[in-house]
Order: sequence, then C-alpha cells, then structure tokens
Amino acid sequence: MKNRVITISREFGSGGRTIGKKVAEQLGIPCYDSELIQKIAEESGFDAKFVQEAGEYAPGGFLSNLSSRTFGPTNEDYLWKIQYQIISRLAGQGPCVIVGRCADYILREHPNCLNVFVHADKAARIQRIVGLGHCEERKAPDFVTKKDKQRANYYNFYSNNRWDDLQNYDLTIDTSRFTVDQAVDMIIDAAQKLDTK
Amino acid sequence: MKNRVITISREFGSGGRTIGKKVAEQLGIPCYDSELIQKIAEESGFDAKFVQEAGEYAPGGFLSNLSSRTFGPTNEDYLWKIQYQIISRLAGQGPCVIVGRCADYILREHPNCLNVFVHADKAARIQRIVGLGHCEERKAPDFVTKKDKQRANYYNFYSNNRWDDLQNYDLTIDTSRFTVDQAVDMIIDAAQKLDTK
Repeated sequence: MKNRVITISREFGSGGRTIGKKVAEQLGIPCYDSELIQKIAEESGFDAKFVQEAGEYAPGGFLSNLSSRTFGPTNEDYLWKIQYQIISRLAGQGPCVIVGRCADYILREHPNCLNVFVHADKAARIQRIVGLGHCEERKAPDFVTKKDKQRANYYNFYSNNRWDDLQNYDLTIDTSRFTVDQAVDMIIDAAQKLDTK
Repeated sequence: MKNRVITISREFGSGGRTIGKKVAEQLGIPCYDSELIQKIAEESGFDAKFVQEAGEYAPGGFLSNLSSRTFGPTNEDYLWKIQYQIISRLAGQGPCVIVGRCADYILREHPNCLNVFVHADKAARIQRIVGLGHCEERKAPDFVTKKDKQRANYYNFYSNNRWDDLQNYDLTIDTSRFTVDQAVDMIIDAAQKLDTK
C-alpha cells in the first residue's frame, strides 16, 4: 500500500476507534489514537489527560473560543500547533491510521489520504457506550450529544470546515447499518481501490 | 438479494446516474431513472419534460415555494404526491435501484434500503459534464452550482431533511477519488454486506 494514510473521523460512540484499530491491525500499519495523545503530551509538556480533552473537544462554542483569545493564543492554540506538527510528521513517515484530531483537515494536502467519517444513529451509539460501560444509561443521551457538539466545535473552529460535512470525506459509513468488521472491510477495500486506480 | 432497494442520491455531474445503472445491471435488477420519469408522466398526465424538471428541481428557494401555495397545492405538490406513491409501489415490488427523486426519504420506513449519496469535487464534475457534452465549458461552473441548489431546495422543501446531510445515508462516496466501476463495486459490496449481517 503506497504510503496510504487513513484518517477516521467519528461521531462519539459510533465505533470509529475500534474500527481504526482493526483496520490498522489488518493492514499491519500503526494506528495513532492513544499513542498520538502520548506523543503530543510528551512534546508539548501538557498532561496526557489535558491533551485528550483539549486536543479534540472545545469546552464551549465559537464565542468562548474567541473571548479567551483577547490576551493572545490559548493553551488550546498551542496544543493545536503541536498536534498539527506531529500529525503531519507521522503521515510523512509511512502508512498509518489516524483516529480523530482533525487529521483529515491537517493532512488536506497529503496526496495519499483516505478520509473516512463514521457515524451511527443516536440509539445505536447510546447502546454501544452503555454496553461498553462508558456511561450510565440515563446520562447517555446528553453525554453523546455533548461529546459530538464539542468535537464539532473544535473541528469547526480550527479548520474553518464543518466537521460533519460529507464533502470532507472520501467515504462515510453508517455503523448502525453495518457491523464493525464490515466497516473495517469497506475501509480497507476503499484504500486498496485508491492504490489500483 | 433480499428485496434490497438501493437509492442513489447524487450531486450533479458526479456520475450517480451511470453508477446506478451499472449497479442495477450487475445485480440484474431494474434501475428507475428515466423509466421512473416516464411512469410518473403517464400516471400524472404531466409532460415527461415537466416531470423531469419539476420532480427534482425546485425553481426557487423556500420562499418561492411557499408564496405560490397561498392559493392551495401547486402542480409540483401534486407531482410530489404521485412520485411518492410510484416510488413506494416500485420499492414494494422487489429489488431495484432508484436514482434521485428523494427516494431515500420517501422510503425511510422501508426495511431493506441501502441509501447512498454520490458526490465529487466541483472541478471533477465540471470536467465530466463538459466531456459528456452536457454543457459548454464556460457555462459549466454556474450550471453545476445551479443544479445542485435546485436539487437541494427540492429535497429540503419536501423532506424537511437536508439533502447533503450525511446522516441520511448509509454510505457516501466521493467519485473524484474513485472510478465509476470502483464506486459500483463499493455499492454492491455494501448491499451484499447488509444481506449477510
């Protein structure tokens, strides 16, 4: 596979992280998800927990992002810069899978990216996160909505694109219709098709 | 294939119609596109040309649609009703491919639909329609934009959903990244996956 980088953006609870790991395993290439957080934490000096939250989730909306910038770049801006550099460097090193973190946008000039967005209906996502023990059932609907909003705000703020705009992606898959393994197959197949095009 | 109906919504010039025909050919099932227009024309009494334009393209935006309704349903509303009935009936008859015409929305309660959206970047779409002789090169950019806007307005008005919202679709494919035949394979593979899930 020609230096193919596969970016997987995903709605919260849609199984995107698991799918990313399995794609990478089957292709025998690295998957950057928690590994990426660790790298960013090391290079930025921030705590890994801060990197995990602030590097993908905007705490407020557009206005809160703007207001705190009255006095110059925020910690989040610094983190974005480091994240941008690390993702660009990793993508230059060879084939890999990168989950989340606006990688599709950061690598928009990379010639061999396959950009995938994974989503699912809310009921399926709630069932998934409750089943995995990530959240109590009664809190799950609000939790899913909040996480998606934060991911969208973060992406929309730093990229000036819209997170859930299908135009950003070569392929989008609704994982409430397909199993995780089927989605993995579809992504690998798409990546191989790009190589033989 | 279990009474599988494949709906293909598409940006103008993205190759969706050709892809739909090829999917149907390979699966040995009917493809309703111009055939659908003919059926609607026969049952409604409208001219096929009017059906082709008014059954998928809103001439104006939301306001123009509203204003003409001051005096009751318009011809377009009547056409929508006929189109709705015919698409529902055809989908009940057996496996088929339906291109455009809000079929994904009309069939939202159908248990065996695969809803696909096909899109491509504007340059690729312009190249395609000019190559096929559908439009002069100098007029192509505006033509593509206008057609997309009209399709979106039509869909958004009658469905209350957003035409290009990835949440409506099980699969979206960027045909500026894949060949027509690759997209055909991806759609057939997805349909078969739903059957074996």
